[in-house]
Amino acid sequence: MFIHAVSHYLPAQVVGNDHFTRLNGLSDEWITTRTGISERRKAAPGENTNTMSIEVVNHLMAKADLSTVDLIVGATYTPHDTIVTLAHVVQNHLNIADIPTVSVSSACSSLLNAIEIVEGYFALNKATRALVVVSEHNTGYYNEDDTVSGHLWGDGAAALLITRERQSDRDLTIKGLLTGGAAHAGKAVEAVVLQPLERGVIMPYGRDVFQNACVYMPKASLQILAKFGLTAADVDYVLPHQANLRISRNVMQTLGLPEEKLISNIQYLGNTGCAGCAIALSERWDSFQPGERIVVTVFGGGYSYGAMLVEV
Amino acid sequence: MFIHAVSHYLPAQVVGNDHFTRLNGLSDEWITTRTGISERRKAAPGENTNTMSIEVVNHLMAKADLSTVDLIVGATYTPHDTIVTLAHVVQNHLNIADIPTVSVSSACSSLLNAIEIVEGYFALNKATRALVVVSEHNTGYYNEDDTVSGHLWGDGAAALLITRERQSDRDLTIKGLLTGGAAHAGKAVEAVVLQPLERGVIMPYGRDVFQNACVYMPKASLQILAKFGLTAADVDYVLPHQANLRISRNVMQTLGLPEEKLISNIQYLGNTGCAGCAIALSERWDSFQPGERIVVTVFGGGYSYGAMLVEV
Repeated sequence: MFIHAVSHYLPAQVVGNDHFTRLNGLSDEWITTRTGISERRKAAPGENTNTMSIEVVNHLMAKADLSTVDLIVGATYTPHDTIVTLAHVVQNHLNIADIPTVSVSSACSSLLNAIEIVEGYFALNKATRALVVVSEHNTGYYNEDDTVSGHLWGDGAAALLITRERQSDRDLTIKGLLTGGAAHAGKAVEAVVLQPLERGVIMPYGRDVFQNACVYMPKASLQILAKFGLTAADVDYVLPHQANLRISRNVMQTLGLPEEKLISNIQYLGNTGCAGCAIALSERWDSFQPGERIVVTVFGGGYSYGAMLVEV
Repeated sequence: MFIHAVSHYLPAQVVGNDHFTRLNGLSDEWITTRTGISERRKAAPGENTNTMSIEVVNHLMAKADLSTVDLIVGATYTPHDTIVTLAHVVQNHLNIADIPTVSVSSACSSLLNAIEIVEGYFALNKATRALVVVSEHNTGYYNEDDTVSGHLWGDGAAALLITRERQSDRDLTIKGLLTGGAAHAGKAVEAVVLQPLERGVIMPYGRDVFQNACVYMPKASLQILAKFGLTAADVDYVLPHQANLRISRNVMQTLGLPEEKLISNIQYLGNTGCAGCAIALSERWDSFQPGERIVVTVFGGGYSYGAMLVEV
């Protein structure tokens, strides 16, 4: 299957580290040293995962024909509406009747869960042109006074048109992907939580998240490469979940790859949840060269992980 | 594929209509005439979609070997945790490493979305034994003072072990299923909403939900039957989404089937969201006779719908 087109949407408001210096006394140097983050975007009042999804689908419409989409899979862990999910508002917006429409959450790793679900519908011949929309409104659910994780989060959305057959020379080929739950590992079920009836997103065991992310992303990357007889040396770019620049660098180190091969947007977007990797794919789309191989690898609270091998 | 086993879990507390008479002045007769509901269950303090999921999986373990489960799909629109989803706590509880684990929402129709996702993983040879867990904590998100819909909701959970190959003579055969979004119809994106950052579940356009449910459930049922050269006359039981007994009766009437063929638990459980049909399957499991055909059909806020043909 193929990624025919991808778009991203970012809220206009930029929040620099100086905001958290004023609020919590965290210096720019303290934040950037620990996370790599200098700034992030914040949704405006009235913006949420549903409105951002519609925005990004409008952007994608300018690049690709969405009128024949026959499957919509949304993903978020920061939902505006758990009944009228982002997938449903997108279906409503596109006004395409009677196609499977569902939203998923596997926290920050949902992008690959969503694409694997698409892969299943393609295998069943129940769909051939799928719209995947990932959208996070972290600042809706975060506590910016939280000195542990308040400064990590950013908002944003991305949309991908995934087709079973190649549509053009510029399509990215999805060679294969895998996802897995690692809820048995470490402090999986308490390290990062978002319990809407209790409070917003908190990360009581950041170190455990860090350690497991550094284990699972390289492991999953090597697994998907091995399926195609490849190793890390065959990879042109690694696009890990954008949780923390130190995690991303650790992943590259474990894979034995130089930092030039790392794709990263966390410096200016923060952790945009399951949208981060898709936003980066959209940002870098025009720079990819024929024959290049990209491994997208994700890790999320819960825990869950995945890896996808893409070829230009 | 096959439903090898199913279990359900209900919180102990029973809330009768007299509760709403005292609270809102709604008489037992007023509620039963309009909805068919006499009582519903309410989760205890500390219970939620995640704890109920673990409870129901424990029940299922007594009926089937879950140690070789290789896929977990959870579903809820009343999440306890949107990051550590019910699928993740179940994976943690079963302590099965590295299997795809994801939660979905397509409101009250998610049961069939979850099973269709399983169907996709089976087609991909990425799974052969899937655990589907549906769990709703409506009373966590409802406003019981709401005279429009406060009295409709109940809590509960169910779990199904779905296998690619037949495991025993008693397995239910899933002949086929379909799902669809109907977000283009009526007041789909505003009729029933649950916006955690704003407030709980509300149903400002109940009549629109009613009308569309009565259109889409019979339509989807006939569609799935037609795929197998069958008509409504070939069906032994219809198990519609448990939203309102008047909707269920309307569905039977449209299909030209007598009320004896209706499976219903809304009278004593209320609307248990995406769990309702699965709870009913569990309740009725022992009474099904070889050769019988059951159509499960769902409709949910958003809107979304589906139908599944099952044979004993």
